[in-house]
Amino acid sequence: MELWFTENQNENVRFGIKIKKHLYSGQSEFQKIDVFETFGFGKLLTIDGIIMVTEKDEFIYHEMISHVPLAAKPDIKSVLVIGGGDGGTVRELTRYKTIQNIDMVEIDKLVVDISKEYIKQTSENLDDSRVKLYYEDGIEFVKNKVNEYDLIIVDSTDPIGPGEGLFTEEFYQNCYNALKSDGIMINQNESPYYDKERRELVRANKKMKKVFPIVEVYQFHMPTYPSGHWLFGFNSKKINPINDSIKKWNNLNINTKYYNTEIHKGSFMLPNYVKEIINDEK
Amino acid sequence: MELWFTENQNENVRFGIKIKKHLYSGQSEFQKIDVFETFGFGKLLTIDGIIMVTEKDEFIYHEMISHVPLAAKPDIKSVLVIGGGDGGTVRELTRYKTIQNIDMVEIDKLVVDISKEYIKQTSENLDDSRVKLYYEDGIEFVKNKVNEYDLIIVDSTDPIGPGEGLFTEEFYQNCYNALKSDGIMINQNESPYYDKERRELVRANKKMKKVFPIVEVYQFHMPTYPSGHWLFGFNSKKINPINDSIKKWNNLNINTKYYNTEIHKGSFMLPNYVKEIINDEK
Repeated sequence: MELWFTENQNENVRFGIKIKKHLYSGQSEFQKIDVFETFGFGKLLTIDGIIMVTEKDEFIYHEMISHVPLAAKPDIKSVLVIGGGDGGTVRELTRYKTIQNIDMVEIDKLVVDISKEYIKQTSENLDDSRVKLYYEDGIEFVKNKVNEYDLIIVDSTDPIGPGEGLFTEEFYQNCYNALKSDGIMINQNESPYYDKERRELVRANKKMKKVFPIVEVYQFHMPTYPSGHWLFGFNSKKINPINDSIKKWNNLNINTKYYNTEIHKGSFMLPNYVKEIINDEK
Repeated sequence: MELWFTENQNENVRFGIKIKKHLYSGQSEFQKIDVFETFGFGKLLTIDGIIMVTEKDEFIYHEMISHVPLAAKPDIKSVLVIGGGDGGTVRELTRYKTIQNIDMVEIDKLVVDISKEYIKQTSENLDDSRVKLYYEDGIEFVKNKVNEYDLIIVDSTDPIGPGEGLFTEEFYQNCYNALKSDGIMINQNESPYYDKERRELVRANKKMKKVFPIVEVYQFHMPTYPSGHWLFGFNSKKINPINDSIKKWNNLNINTKYYNTEIHKGSFMLPNYVKEIINDEK
């Protein structure tokens, strides 16, 4: 017998992973959560049938979402993570001794509970004393905050279901207000390749430009996401993503598998068709 | 009814594309060739069940295999292409007025014939007067050449079947000899992500270093190849891949969808785990 998990990445494309065992299946108030033991990817966490985390490639996503802003602004002390229930983003953040507090706001407690139980690789540092976990709606949480954070990371699902409100101009404006005067906001920016994700990239980028003076996009290779070509947005009040601080990152001796200060720069060098997508809607 | 093409990228991963019509299926002396009309990717050419070309993303592969060496060495006049039967690499090369002759050596005439009949998008410039087509074994073809070419591009399939001999040290040495004193060789270098392709990357890179003084690897996003993270090797006698010539490329006004002189530089900035793969076997 063979057991395969298959994600319909869109109506014309399928991606399948061979499964050893279906470890968990549950339905929260918000979404369906599954965990699998796979053959080639370690543990696999899916939400509503979409791949969120595999142990084989989560390091790419989590290193790129965290080390890029931390290298651009080494004096980050206070961070807000919205989403990211698997814990991988927090794991990377806790590697910085200079960070003093991390507020993580995950709407779905079940994602955190299941990650803690089944995916220690990403969730291991959620118990760090600097981390405060809030099981709330990030949209509401950020509304009341002014001048509190150096960095906000929106580690969201796609803009459907509970993730939808994390892709609105109002939310971006509230994040802007919650940031200090030299704050940075990183957002999950989908992908340029297939229509569905490209549409969300364009919409999010357009709205970000109404709110932040500096809006850049950077790319990375994420094999288990549709097309393998994925983007984050680097949005900030003052700080450019490529600046003189970056080279100091190497002095921190943080051991990474994907990120380095060269790929930091290279990831902002985008293919023409991606630049056109982002600039067309100016 | 739904018709799906499925590639088993390895024993644990499947990639599927929805098919409108199976346009062609044939067996040459060397391999099985199929052409499909797809829903999301235009025409699809497969060899032995492996995706070679889709009209949606072939531009990425063909731009990166050709414009990187041409930007690094703008005075390239004589080019040898080994493989590349679909014609996409030649199409990009013929956009340079400064190139005087292109020898293309494809072992399997059927690949060329089928590409000409079904995939005009890649094959349209194979009739350019500067192109000479040889239906021969590239391994034999290159043995007798000394000091003839400015650039050799090995646009091969994976190192199984007829492509296997294109991944040997002897072949690389023969290419070295066939190149002029400042010549460049570009090779299809597989992928760092899954074991199967990583093994070939390591082997090819190790052999290249025995032959060429300058051996670099560059990466690009190729959505329909396994993991979407693909590499070419830039191997040369003298010329570095990143040099002062690159900026002059913009004066040529060649319209590209992926390549630009920024991503030229960015593509050589590799993730740590890829650098380790390449350097471990020194």
